[in-house]
Amino acid sequence: MSSTATYTVSGMTCGHCVSAVTEEVTNISGVTDVQVDLASGAVTITSEAPVEETAVKAAVDEAGYELVSR
Amino acid sequence: MSSTATYTVSGMTCGHCVSAVTEEVTNISGVTDVQVDLASGAVTITSEAPVEETAVKAAVDEAGYELVSR
Repeated sequence: MSSTATYTVSGMTCGHCVSAVTEEVTNISGVTDVQVDLASGAVTITSEAPVEETAVKAAVDEAGYELVSR
Repeated sequence: MSSTATYTVSGMTCGHCVSAVTEEVTNISGVTDVQVDLASGAVTITSEAPVEETAVKAAVDEAGYELVSR
């Protein structure tokens, strides 16, 4: 079984930003796939089990961006 | 003796872009310092001797951006 959640991240402006967010979110335990749409800021996270929003927020912060909404 | 030249680069949108351009331009033989102003796109290159514009253009291209003017 897998879980998918989509968040919105602000501040991403280029492919490097996408890479930074993808890398940090991928590092969250249990995450199996991360898809980022630069234009909309949508970050779709697939994981083995639901991921705590606080963990996602921490990862996005670590990358240098802001989690706006789920 | 050192030489300084300022170019304008378009397409840089964030700190990662600045890092990518700085890294590629720094790799040009003879370059001793590179300063990038993200807001204006100004890239100021200090080198031991004047650097060929074609070398700067190639480095900026390699980083994924465009040299607009000198």
